[in-house]
Amino acid sequence: MSVSGSGLAPVALTMGEPAGIGGEITLKAWLRRAEGLPTFFCIDDPARLTALAERLGLTVPVAVITSPGEAAAAFGRALPVLPQPLAEAVAPGQPAPANAAAVRASIARAVELAQSGAACAVVTNPIHKGVMYQGGFRFPGHTEFLAHLVGQDGAEVMMLACRALRVVPVTIHVSLADAIATLTQAGIVATGLTTAAALRRDFGIARPRLAVAALNPHAGEDGAMGREDMDIVAPAVAELRAAGIDAVGPLPPDTMFHAAARAKYDAALCMYHDQALIPVKTLGFDEGVNITLGLPIVRTSPDHGTAFGIAGTGTADETSLMEALRQAALIARNRQDIPA
Amino acid sequence: MSVSGSGLAPVALTMGEPAGIGGEITLKAWLRRAEGLPTFFCIDDPARLTALAERLGLTVPVAVITSPGEAAAAFGRALPVLPQPLAEAVAPGQPAPANAAAVRASIARAVELAQSGAACAVVTNPIHKGVMYQGGFRFPGHTEFLAHLVGQDGAEVMMLACRALRVVPVTIHVSLADAIATLTQAGIVATGLTTAAALRRDFGIARPRLAVAALNPHAGEDGAMGREDMDIVAPAVAELRAAGIDAVGPLPPDTMFHAAARAKYDAALCMYHDQALIPVKTLGFDEGVNITLGLPIVRTSPDHGTAFGIAGTGTADETSLMEALRQAALIARNRQDIPA
Repeated sequence: MSVSGSGLAPVALTMGEPAGIGGEITLKAWLRRAEGLPTFFCIDDPARLTALAERLGLTVPVAVITSPGEAAAAFGRALPVLPQPLAEAVAPGQPAPANAAAVRASIARAVELAQSGAACAVVTNPIHKGVMYQGGFRFPGHTEFLAHLVGQDGAEVMMLACRALRVVPVTIHVSLADAIATLTQAGIVATGLTTAAALRRDFGIARPRLAVAALNPHAGEDGAMGREDMDIVAPAVAELRAAGIDAVGPLPPDTMFHAAARAKYDAALCMYHDQALIPVKTLGFDEGVNITLGLPIVRTSPDHGTAFGIAGTGTADETSLMEALRQAALIARNRQDIPA
Repeated sequence: MSVSGSGLAPVALTMGEPAGIGGEITLKAWLRRAEGLPTFFCIDDPARLTALAERLGLTVPVAVITSPGEAAAAFGRALPVLPQPLAEAVAPGQPAPANAAAVRASIARAVELAQSGAACAVVTNPIHKGVMYQGGFRFPGHTEFLAHLVGQDGAEVMMLACRALRVVPVTIHVSLADAIATLTQAGIVATGLTTAAALRRDFGIARPRLAVAALNPHAGEDGAMGREDMDIVAPAVAELRAAGIDAVGPLPPDTMFHAAARAKYDAALCMYHDQALIPVKTLGFDEGVNITLGLPIVRTSPDHGTAFGIAGTGTADETSLMEALRQAALIARNRQDIPA
């Protein structure tokens, strides 16, 4: 039952932190389902979604389902919800650690359904790490937890994408000093190989072109501004090329993200978090999507946090979640059509 | 004679590296002088400019002048050139160290004329550091040489500007590791004070708003991803605020450069080269201008290099030089109108 004759299984959308904006953007995305969204279902507390819709004045009927297979029939008239009850009532902006177990269970259920094929992909609403830690969560973030659930710790690679640009940071949630200290040729090569494979299988690009950013300004100017580009990045690019990947670099980071430069590659491999995220968020702030590469399941998420400051006010923007849903279905369809 | 009754003194434009694209973009900018350009004159070799115009098929008569005061009368019909002979004939793309002395003399003459008031501003065509070093030049770059010429070594601050964004890097041409190692509270504060003063005097912004970027991703998340934002950047912002500057930060670097975020400040203070240059070159690659703040003379330059690879081919883009000429005149006019 993984994929019906005429299309894909539905997308599983997790609850995320219920005191954040996840519920609101989920309701708003369903209202705009005609704008190219795939069929999706939530793993959430039906009563809290109904109460939230009422609070926000949104006409969103909720259809409680018992399996993903019921989502397609309900989706046109109601938001399908696979129940995951909360331990405590939700106050917008005020997360309750007692609900962390339900947040976690929603993610784990979504992953199981994707692994079984009952869901074609997982889209995750934002969680709040601090609250999750208080509730006993022990992973650096969402993505690492997903990799752990599918038994592939360390295989995960984070891509951020907007219409104009795809970027993949080689080092991620560490200080800038630690990004430099932990950057290795092997790490760049592994990330590049995963990215190239994903561009083929997930995005349907037969011969992916990778642009590899330098670590230092002007790519280090032959060592005058740092040796890492000569000693680490350039050998990694050579190794990727030897493996048959169309990779170029190390490129001066400041001149590789304007329109004419972007036309020359399919994804930019970046050496640290902000080198990747500054250009993608500058170009496509509201539409950015986080895509996890390298795992057997398809997973995307909106590229923003729980936004406690505006939770419950009705001002949250659903654009990024809608794009995450679209990208998840697109990747699932490509994986169905393109042999691994 | 610094400023005529009806306007400004002309802008002095240096030769730059003659084997690069400086001559070509100068000729092309003069042809487009009706597009809001101020009167300018070159300090260059008249014979080489005439030969270059012929080579490129550009109809640009050259008017040899003996002082900047003659530029205005000639400018409508010819490109005014204050002669600075070259030692050797120029081959595009093949720089001759023997010409480095003339390149340097052109800069020194422009600075003298700006100091005397005979020129309202200096605009510099790109030089090539490697060639200049072979010719005996001993400064890290153009900007440091200018600061030295006016006797204010270390006072210079580099701003990059396009229509959408102004950025100022606190550390500049050093490796990323050295940027972290040399970042200090005093350095951030000094750069912030110079920037705020320049926004007032040079750009006519009565109460400038500074956005101060964090060094680390997510502004360090309370020390979980580096302590520099707590220990260095935040105290610098507090010190700037105590000095009456409307500064905010440290801000997460990836979410401060999209349109809605940019609307909240007049300039972004960045901690390292690419944090500043990635967003400005992503948003305004062809129109970026380098503006030197903190010196008694006005100086701007196009935000690109000598481009030896395309020199002599007629394909160089004059947009950035034209914007540099416009910005130089705008700043000179503001300095004339706004008391220091």
